[in-house]
Amino acid sequence: MDRLETIAEVRQYVRAERIARRTVAFVPTMGALHDGHGSCVAAARELGGVVIVSIFVNPAQFEPREDLSKYPRPLEKDLALCGAWGVDAVFVPDAAEMYRVDQDVWVEADRLSKLLCGRTRPGHFRGVATVVLKLLNIVQPDTAVFGQKDAQQAVVIREMVEQLDVAVRLVLSPTVRENDGLAMSSRNAYLALDERARAPWIYRSLVRGKELVSKGERDPSRVAGEIRRQMEAHGIAEVEYVELVDARDLSTPRRVEGKVLIAAAARVGTTRLIDNVVLDVREDGTVEETMLF
Amino acid sequence: MDRLETIAEVRQYVRAERIARRTVAFVPTMGALHDGHGSCVAAARELGGVVIVSIFVNPAQFEPREDLSKYPRPLEKDLALCGAWGVDAVFVPDAAEMYRVDQDVWVEADRLSKLLCGRTRPGHFRGVATVVLKLLNIVQPDTAVFGQKDAQQAVVIREMVEQLDVAVRLVLSPTVRENDGLAMSSRNAYLALDERARAPWIYRSLVRGKELVSKGERDPSRVAGEIRRQMEAHGIAEVEYVELVDARDLSTPRRVEGKVLIAAAARVGTTRLIDNVVLDVREDGTVEETMLF
Repeated sequence: MDRLETIAEVRQYVRAERIARRTVAFVPTMGALHDGHGSCVAAARELGGVVIVSIFVNPAQFEPREDLSKYPRPLEKDLALCGAWGVDAVFVPDAAEMYRVDQDVWVEADRLSKLLCGRTRPGHFRGVATVVLKLLNIVQPDTAVFGQKDAQQAVVIREMVEQLDVAVRLVLSPTVRENDGLAMSSRNAYLALDERARAPWIYRSLVRGKELVSKGERDPSRVAGEIRRQMEAHGIAEVEYVELVDARDLSTPRRVEGKVLIAAAARVGTTRLIDNVVLDVREDGTVEETMLF
Repeated sequence: MDRLETIAEVRQYVRAERIARRTVAFVPTMGALHDGHGSCVAAARELGGVVIVSIFVNPAQFEPREDLSKYPRPLEKDLALCGAWGVDAVFVPDAAEMYRVDQDVWVEADRLSKLLCGRTRPGHFRGVATVVLKLLNIVQPDTAVFGQKDAQQAVVIREMVEQLDVAVRLVLSPTVRENDGLAMSSRNAYLALDERARAPWIYRSLVRGKELVSKGERDPSRVAGEIRRQMEAHGIAEVEYVELVDARDLSTPRRVEGKVLIAAAARVGTTRLIDNVVLDVREDGTVEETMLF
């Protein structure tokens, strides 16, 4: 496995792969890798070309008082996992390589970045979109793989690629969960034992919402209200939001129909966790979990 | 000369050129072509590969009350000029091809877009940066050529390419002038006869500023003041700004030294014109006109 630290090294590596007529699949990460990332790498490997993983804790997507400095950075363990997963090259730039001057040019989703998580993290998606575009421009992959667990991020990136005509194909990988349902997240490492015990109720409550929709409930606020009550009843006291939105543009629907994203953010102790389910609510009344795209 | 109207056609055209191992040079324009564009095309042709010109009057870079609808669109004449200049392919998309959905994702230069022209055209550089990135992503050229006449645009694009790691080399082409000094511009076509007679005083006044610097004046506001007085004394009544700024980051210097951009915007009648000179002010006191980059 190659370890690349500079943009020049990545460009050289990818150029050689192109000359050898291999395609490039890319999985951008912030490290602290878990099976969710592993599933993205597996999806990338299925494409048959080389797989490049980036590990970069992007300062630009953290709000001023967030967990940038304490975000886990177990680099040696991450590199070992990438090796075990069959990754061909890992790009591990430092912040000075990625942000060589004071960043003045940003990629911003006006409307999408203000919804859901954007209400409490106003600069987050600007930071995400900007670093992802930078990474895509550096690696120039044929395909880039993202996880559905970060649903709003996935929609912002899909719209960025579509609206800025970025020449890349996006692949979305399903959320990977612990046995008790908790969505895998690098931030789960912050949870104390009792918090870890309560955390699965975020997902369990989302499943309760899905069951309501399956039984015929079509009022978005009733479904969201029940999910929130479930969370609060099980010790998820600080629910930031529970929302049902159109999976295509994150707009608020009047009725639960079509492709619907049920997204939630909550604090468990001091740790902010997000999760979601995406439902395909068909006209014949059937309801199935599905992918955002 | 090939005429391409869709993004898919451009991608297919460029793919074929790549397979044939030809490099691609790209000149984005809004049409209404003149010798300034011709000089950009000549610079592109010197690179030896194929030359693609885009002609697209970008709605996103016009302010609400600006001249979008009356902006000249002499397409047949433009195509004939491109043919005569030896352009290999012209990309002439319509607005529905370039903006397929309501644009929500934008490229924005926070600081740079608010200076100089940005003060009266607050959304202009966002529109420019966004469409240029879209075009660069569509064409994926090795080199893109811009004109120094639009100096702030050139700086915004240079910073966008640098800060977003866009894989393209930028070439800047010098301002081309009429015999009386007026910078060539598609908007010169708006000028009435008497306005056309006064318009060269924008450049003549900039040259007067350069002469002051050559004689040793190092106070930016004195140089700018004299340029403004010259313009006003010669019938350029509505001077929007005259500024001396650092050519690298458009910051305001205390002294005139190093690479300095002297930029001006003024209305002649109802037509807004811009022009500039870039000076290399050396420590030994010599002063020479130079390129922004």
